[in-house]
Amino acid sequence: MSWLSISQDSHFSLANIPFGIISTSADTTKRPAIAIGDYALDLKAFASAGGFSSSSDIQKHVSVFNHEFLNSFAALGRPFHRLVREYLQSVFSAETKIPQVLKDNVQLRETALVKRSEIQNHMPLAVGDYTDFYAGKHHAYNVGSLFRGPDDALQPNYTHLPVAYHGRASSVVVSGTPIRRPWGQILKNPKAEPKVPILSACEKLDLELEMGMFICRENQLGHPIPIAEADKYIFGYVLMNDWSARDIQAWEYIPLGPFTAKNLGTTISAWVVLADALEGCKAAGIANDHALLPYLEEKTKENCLDIHLEVDLTTPAGEKTTISKSNSRNLLWSWPQMIAHHTITGCNLRPGDLLGSGTITGDTPGSEGSLLEQTQGGKTKVQLQGGEERTFLQDGDTLTLRGWAGKEGALVGFGEVTGTVQPALPLF
Amino acid sequence: MSWLSISQDSHFSLANIPFGIISTSADTTKRPAIAIGDYALDLKAFASAGGFSSSSDIQKHVSVFNHEFLNSFAALGRPFHRLVREYLQSVFSAETKIPQVLKDNVQLRETALVKRSEIQNHMPLAVGDYTDFYAGKHHAYNVGSLFRGPDDALQPNYTHLPVAYHGRASSVVVSGTPIRRPWGQILKNPKAEPKVPILSACEKLDLELEMGMFICRENQLGHPIPIAEADKYIFGYVLMNDWSARDIQAWEYIPLGPFTAKNLGTTISAWVVLADALEGCKAAGIANDHALLPYLEEKTKENCLDIHLEVDLTTPAGEKTTISKSNSRNLLWSWPQMIAHHTITGCNLRPGDLLGSGTITGDTPGSEGSLLEQTQGGKTKVQLQGGEERTFLQDGDTLTLRGWAGKEGALVGFGEVTGTVQPALPLF
Repeated sequence: MSWLSISQDSHFSLANIPFGIISTSADTTKRPAIAIGDYALDLKAFASAGGFSSSSDIQKHVSVFNHEFLNSFAALGRPFHRLVREYLQSVFSAETKIPQVLKDNVQLRETALVKRSEIQNHMPLAVGDYTDFYAGKHHAYNVGSLFRGPDDALQPNYTHLPVAYHGRASSVVVSGTPIRRPWGQILKNPKAEPKVPILSACEKLDLELEMGMFICRENQLGHPIPIAEADKYIFGYVLMNDWSARDIQAWEYIPLGPFTAKNLGTTISAWVVLADALEGCKAAGIANDHALLPYLEEKTKENCLDIHLEVDLTTPAGEKTTISKSNSRNLLWSWPQMIAHHTITGCNLRPGDLLGSGTITGDTPGSEGSLLEQTQGGKTKVQLQGGEERTFLQDGDTLTLRGWAGKEGALVGFGEVTGTVQPALPLF
Repeated sequence: MSWLSISQDSHFSLANIPFGIISTSADTTKRPAIAIGDYALDLKAFASAGGFSSSSDIQKHVSVFNHEFLNSFAALGRPFHRLVREYLQSVFSAETKIPQVLKDNVQLRETALVKRSEIQNHMPLAVGDYTDFYAGKHHAYNVGSLFRGPDDALQPNYTHLPVAYHGRASSVVVSGTPIRRPWGQILKNPKAEPKVPILSACEKLDLELEMGMFICRENQLGHPIPIAEADKYIFGYVLMNDWSARDIQAWEYIPLGPFTAKNLGTTISAWVVLADALEGCKAAGIANDHALLPYLEEKTKENCLDIHLEVDLTTPAGEKTTISKSNSRNLLWSWPQMIAHHTITGCNLRPGDLLGSGTITGDTPGSEGSLLEQTQGGKTKVQLQGGEERTFLQDGDTLTLRGWAGKEGALVGFGEVTGTVQPALPLF
């Protein structure tokens, strides 16, 4: 399909064209790029060499490819993203009608087409606000069962609205960033009275397997986004690990929700897959038994994404185990429903806002999106290759999340989201 | 004290020098300014006319006064803020040693000194993340009593850590911005089964009287800020109204905290009072009976601010009633304690981050920082001038918050924080 050699199992097929921010040792400027096969196309270099000059509609906006974040590109709207993606697909197509742009342009290929193994990835967008939903119904049920028993696992509001809370935007980091084991307040014996916490390094450090959605369009404060319009606000998706300190969370979260237990880091994929690239990968999520209020009703049930998800845990000894396999269909609420609910009271979204799905857990053993669930709150252990076992994460453990849709040769994927746990610092 | 005529009851005495962002009809560019008496000094005009040229240490950074937000100024750090404030105090002093700069410079006075009645105020800083604490102990007790009864009003963690949740940064607006009554999910009869919400315009729209603190310095992700260092991170303070939809909040907030009920708008004062300006206005907050973990222990108890707070409600008929008088000492946790706890798990703060105190309620009737408390959840009514009464806010009501410290002639105040309730829009 492409004149560029792209392996059949690459997440970055010609059907994908995801966007990110890169730098190289030769040019440390942060700049936009796309991923394709084993390469990244440096869009700053490509644009400045006239790579977009065959399209006047793109050419007039190429200054966005000089920016160090994708926010300005995102803010140009979905029709523009579509134009650029389709143009780049035509540039890389085996039957390209504009071979002079890149295929036959040896000099530009040498300057703009960089091996991904040689690049540094950076945060793709400057995150405005970060909101984390709780749309993974199996996850919510499992966690609720652990805390309140199975009969009372889901709160009465759960099936009527997409529960969410505000997260911390400053601590969203790009794949590869190490995560420091945090200190925090922990109640060692929850049943003892009086309840007196200690300050301790977290002993229950966990992952949360999530998808994230970046917003590309602004609505005015006080003006909800109708669900039929929600698609226009979606820039694209990332894969996400929302690191969580379970022992700190358990003590702090009543009555206003998680706070410092979630501020230690949220890792997102380096590459943002455009909403358009996933148009063919939609499917129904988990059915909702309740009638919905009209502002949450959609014309189609097929507004969840059908993305296969996996989590590997690699021990400090280098032994790798796939500890979870799930799918992004395990959500009770679709992405447009999240947007409609987020704005129902008039909240203004802005380009660069990040909305997380919540932990995505399936309905079978081995599909849990967190160790909390997989070990039933630490009661059981996950067996790893090489004979080790885990309840929660140990120092030096590396987590690797993967997610992809589509078929071999035309995969639309996110690459890998990695993070290694660093030991807690000595405190002050 | 100043050659400029400043009334004795002005919040903007020579002892204050608060910073904001203004524009005028003659020049619609957003630009930094200070408030003094009935005037604003346009710092862009002042700097470009060489107003700071008597201080080389300021002069080399004057480009920050061309920015449309104060973030870059804030990021220069407290010693720089102190330098600029003291310089401007010397410029306006009756015994100024540099009268040629402004006092005797009629032309610059005409261009740079603008009547505040003729300016437009804008958001003083671009808010990075907004965190809202819950440090008002009387408020937390009152609200807890309403929901769970007085014996169980405060959660076990309340006296061990400053409870907080992430708020919404995009909907923080400057004083004067109208607030639209929101739509949202409401459970009309909480005791009926099954629990089925309706979509309704909010019927329990409320205020929250708060103080806010802006951050001026960054810490690295993974590195907590020691409490002894916290002062260096404080740019200054604002007065704040965190509008709240109580009926929406009651249905949505379990288990992850308030979300859409707080996204409709948070109003801050146009003027940020520098931390230095309030150094002389510190006092002990509410004593904590519990021993604190070392990371929350302070050398002094005098780290709460002693700021008198008032709330006026003006009806659409124009009748004004002061419905609350409180003081910012009614907090269990100090500002440095909030910073230390916020970062204990390694969360990175950034210049422009906003930390709210939570609702500030005193321990006497008439000192409540919310109508929820004052009307005991809507059971009683607040009597207003002109014979009207309120449980919660009605369309067209205007709230005016005021806060000041110090003595007549040397007041350090925030001016007014105003907002008028607009009727709910027809939905879609």
